[in-house]
Amino acid sequence: MGKSKVLVIGGTGYLGKRLVKASLAQGHETYVLHRPEVGVDIDKIEMLISFKMLGAHLVPGSFTDHKSLVEAVKMVDVVICAISGVHIRSHNILLQLKLVEAIKEAGNVKRFLPSEFGTDPARIENATEPGKVTFDDKMVVRKAIEKGGIPFTYISANCFAGYFVGGLCQLGKILPSRDSVVIHGDGNKKAIYVAEDDIATYTIKTIDDPRTLNKTLYLRPPKNILSQREVVHKWEKLIGKQLHKITLSKQDFLASMKVEDVEYAQQVGMSHYHDVLYEGCLTNFEIGDEGEEASKLYPEVNYTTVEDFLKRYDMSAINAKVTFQHHHPRLHQYLLCPTPPIYSLSASASNTAMDMKA
Amino acid sequence: MGKSKVLVIGGTGYLGKRLVKASLAQGHETYVLHRPEVGVDIDKIEMLISFKMLGAHLVPGSFTDHKSLVEAVKMVDVVICAISGVHIRSHNILLQLKLVEAIKEAGNVKRFLPSEFGTDPARIENATEPGKVTFDDKMVVRKAIEKGGIPFTYISANCFAGYFVGGLCQLGKILPSRDSVVIHGDGNKKAIYVAEDDIATYTIKTIDDPRTLNKTLYLRPPKNILSQREVVHKWEKLIGKQLHKITLSKQDFLASMKVEDVEYAQQVGMSHYHDVLYEGCLTNFEIGDEGEEASKLYPEVNYTTVEDFLKRYDMSAINAKVTFQHHHPRLHQYLLCPTPPIYSLSASASNTAMDMKA
Repeated sequence: MGKSKVLVIGGTGYLGKRLVKASLAQGHETYVLHRPEVGVDIDKIEMLISFKMLGAHLVPGSFTDHKSLVEAVKMVDVVICAISGVHIRSHNILLQLKLVEAIKEAGNVKRFLPSEFGTDPARIENATEPGKVTFDDKMVVRKAIEKGGIPFTYISANCFAGYFVGGLCQLGKILPSRDSVVIHGDGNKKAIYVAEDDIATYTIKTIDDPRTLNKTLYLRPPKNILSQREVVHKWEKLIGKQLHKITLSKQDFLASMKVEDVEYAQQVGMSHYHDVLYEGCLTNFEIGDEGEEASKLYPEVNYTTVEDFLKRYDMSAINAKVTFQHHHPRLHQYLLCPTPPIYSLSASASNTAMDMKA
Repeated sequence: MGKSKVLVIGGTGYLGKRLVKASLAQGHETYVLHRPEVGVDIDKIEMLISFKMLGAHLVPGSFTDHKSLVEAVKMVDVVICAISGVHIRSHNILLQLKLVEAIKEAGNVKRFLPSEFGTDPARIENATEPGKVTFDDKMVVRKAIEKGGIPFTYISANCFAGYFVGGLCQLGKILPSRDSVVIHGDGNKKAIYVAEDDIATYTIKTIDDPRTLNKTLYLRPPKNILSQREVVHKWEKLIGKQLHKITLSKQDFLASMKVEDVEYAQQVGMSHYHDVLYEGCLTNFEIGDEGEEASKLYPEVNYTTVEDFLKRYDMSAINAKVTFQHHHPRLHQYLLCPTPPIYSLSASASNTAMDMKA
């Protein structure tokens, strides 16, 4: 039996582009849906063309054109959907119901991986509003898949490292400060961090694996199950400097969500951070029989540790010698940080830029 | 004398990212300004980190922080600014006046290349409104540079191939149709097309070249000086099929700009297309003594011909077997095409995707 043919939907997105590359790298014949929504976004068009140059097939198709979806699905064995479910980007999870219909009609798909890649919506208890919408929508899609008898795997990828590690677990930050950090509660709840490239690698690893058929694959790389304080500590060790720590209580965090100028999309994101950092929702359950753990199934994957991931931020002028200033002194705005931070140089110019070899 | 150190401003943009790579590829010590405007745009942050991994230095700085600009400029010999001057992306040409002030204060810069990279604003006559604003703004910056005694080179790069060749010279299109094309007037005015990577290569080639000091470098690769009909013909030859041609007169084009729902940014873009395609503004003058031509100065650059550039669109499902449908039948909306086109499949699924080897 040869390797499955794979269709990636949402292939120009943050995770999707990695899935396309991982699929090609692991030797799968790879198809990428070219949706009209890409329009005249030349960066995305260039990305599609680059995939073609790497050997992928581009397939035109649209969620508004059922026939096109059916035809695209018929070309492959495995369908992976990576359309965004994150409100700060775009939240289109329920669009997948159209894809479920197409897969049912096509009738040939051996495995469908819907857009999940986060917290397991079936295992989270008492999700905070309004963020609960994300899990509710994902469950609607799951029910349609299972009712339709479509073979599936759900990927629970936990925290994207680019966001959570880069930001030292602070919402609205994706670069680690050298000065201060907001600690959520006691900072000791464990979360799980996975490098985005590893999410893609594990995902492609599993598509032909009978052990994960109709199951959830949890990505829990053992070295990356860490509390916020542990992440911060690794960073401090790397830069040789202690950060100033500001403790933010659960009550204050929740109150900051309800301030008038906080937009809905931000509230959704804050709910998720709340559940991860104050409730420990990613680590407060055992996987059990309905799931499998990725690093156990695929020990050959040399996953990126949080420690190694942090190294890419070190020795950079992004952080070195730079003082973080905030537009707004109020804590809830610090957390949201919808406006970019202002950098100011606190050292002489000649020392400000350092290369990675330094 | 070693190679100049280069600072790129706007290094995560469409042209800027290519300038960074070309500068590194040609062995220059390369600095990239990390502006706070990047904020939490994770794609841009990842790009900056990838530059660092390629050996570039990241330097924090902001147009709103004069001191930071001065310090960044002091680190290098050559400053290249690639902030967008295209209204459909963002138009911030006059921001460069702050950069000019910083360069004057720093006093060490051997060459400054402001954001030009298009039509030569000093040579265009009777530019169409409202697009004239682009040229006026660029001339304001030039005057400040020259008044400040800053050594400069202006790059007149003519038509970006990704837009003009990809769209067969139609505004609002960046992928060539296999069915029809709108021909502007008689379609015989000559324009000049340059692949974006080549623009970056020529630009970096020239920064240490005394022949282009205080001059304009025109990018006129001889094989790429073509009329719209010639571009279309090359495409037709490649796909082995004639396109249906719809002629659009100058009067109708100008009238379509003035329709109520055409936004200002689009009007600016349309003015530029008008001047290029109906007036031939890129080719109606000789370079003369104040300028140099890039392919003559650097014959070792193996530039991409229009013919080769078009090949990347061929054999792709983006075009093959796909019928272009338009939301709106009216011609001015066809031209603008702010909404993405709808694809529909006109062949069986098994033939729809073709790989590049086909």
